[in-house]
Amino acid sequence: MTLEYDGTDFAGFQLQPDARSVQGELERALHEITREERRVIPAGRTDAGVHARGQVAHFDLANEKPTEEVRGALNFHLKPHPIVVPTVEIAAPDFHARFSATWRRYRYRILNRRTPAGLDRGQVWHVPVPLDDKAMAEAAAVLIGKHDFNSFRSVACQSKTSIKTLDLLSVARTGEEIDIEVGARSFLHNQVRILVGTLQLVGRGQWSRRDVADALAAKDRTRAGPTAPPHGLCLVEVRYDGSAEADPEESVDEE
Amino acid sequence: MTLEYDGTDFAGFQLQPDARSVQGELERALHEITREERRVIPAGRTDAGVHARGQVAHFDLANEKPTEEVRGALNFHLKPHPIVVPTVEIAAPDFHARFSATWRRYRYRILNRRTPAGLDRGQVWHVPVPLDDKAMAEAAAVLIGKHDFNSFRSVACQSKTSIKTLDLLSVARTGEEIDIEVGARSFLHNQVRILVGTLQLVGRGQWSRRDVADALAAKDRTRAGPTAPPHGLCLVEVRYDGSAEADPEESVDEE
Repeated sequence: MTLEYDGTDFAGFQLQPDARSVQGELERALHEITREERRVIPAGRTDAGVHARGQVAHFDLANEKPTEEVRGALNFHLKPHPIVVPTVEIAAPDFHARFSATWRRYRYRILNRRTPAGLDRGQVWHVPVPLDDKAMAEAAAVLIGKHDFNSFRSVACQSKTSIKTLDLLSVARTGEEIDIEVGARSFLHNQVRILVGTLQLVGRGQWSRRDVADALAAKDRTRAGPTAPPHGLCLVEVRYDGSAEADPEESVDEE
Repeated sequence: MTLEYDGTDFAGFQLQPDARSVQGELERALHEITREERRVIPAGRTDAGVHARGQVAHFDLANEKPTEEVRGALNFHLKPHPIVVPTVEIAAPDFHARFSATWRRYRYRILNRRTPAGLDRGQVWHVPVPLDDKAMAEAAAVLIGKHDFNSFRSVACQSKTSIKTLDLLSVARTGEEIDIEVGARSFLHNQVRILVGTLQLVGRGQWSRRDVADALAAKDRTRAGPTAPPHGLCLVEVRYDGSAEADPEESVDEE
């Protein structure tokens, strides 16, 4: 199934014992429909406050059910939570929403003006000082490609390898908004938010393109910029190109 | 001043005795700063649920104050309401936010897919049946120009004339979203929402371009389509080109 949700009032995707999670609501809705206790496995375990427009998740059922019936019933039982299921389809038996994913794309929205957001609260990061988006775009080029991104993952990241291939890192301004699009097969924990937090230092004029290259080369979290807040981040797309099953370690993705 | 607000939880711009209004919050904030009882006059009196990104409003003060001080103080006293004041400037003595406006632009957002919104709740109109945006764009062309829009105003509209000049009415789809942009010197009450409600009938295949032309020619509210819901609508821009003062009647604008 594909998923769209507003992450504002959730403690993240992952099930939590004492807090509201996207997974918890999905598994509850699934139980209402099937009376089965089923795990819902997402392509990416988004953190608290992070949104999704194109999240993908899978679950198993004891018996096949019409997909449109499942989609309608899930949306019904998810109300009034800001989680919707735009599409449901039957997957191949070996399909795994997380391990089979071959491409993920996130968008990070910065509202770059003195005044905070009135309309897009909770969906943009408000940066009140002027950011040089051209300099940010130039510095972003340093990070594209296959690198050891050890400087760009949270200390809690459990991935065995920190080598990742960043295919897309673009910075584009439209009026007062700067959108950063980031694409890769998979990401380290908080990688996108640390990339944004670092590029933002370049935008402020505090860091040069060279500083970004040095931070990457250092392979040390303390050498990169701060972790940008979660609410500007949105998982917009996950692709499955049907290639041979990925190395599970390659598919860790926790933003 | 320019204004951005989320109209969801307001009974509209206009002051109401027993309900929360944008004007009420602005006048309260202004009173906190100046201890003066001042009216805040907007370019357009948006209805309940209608949003604004580029609303403009004016007010008079007994004594001139630094604009940055006023802007900061207004934003401080407007918290936690979803109303912000991005800019404040000193206007010419004869400036009137409503009567001096020479161009207004609204955007209406339709989410056109089976599933309701997860992320943009309260900012899009959910139309679950497929809409033919090409047919809507063609029918929109019939309405552009100077016409008697009597079929396209609410029965409560108080404008003496229903002749208006529609400069812009575009329909563009981006994926699951259809954006309708509407621009004119001024609008009749509910004009944009009735235009959208009518074009939507064309999108559904229930109406032809010819039916839209007939509805316009009829000059009768009962002959046009329904009024689209308020929450898809946003006032995005107001312009003042400094031309001679407009006929006040031409500047009625209540969406």
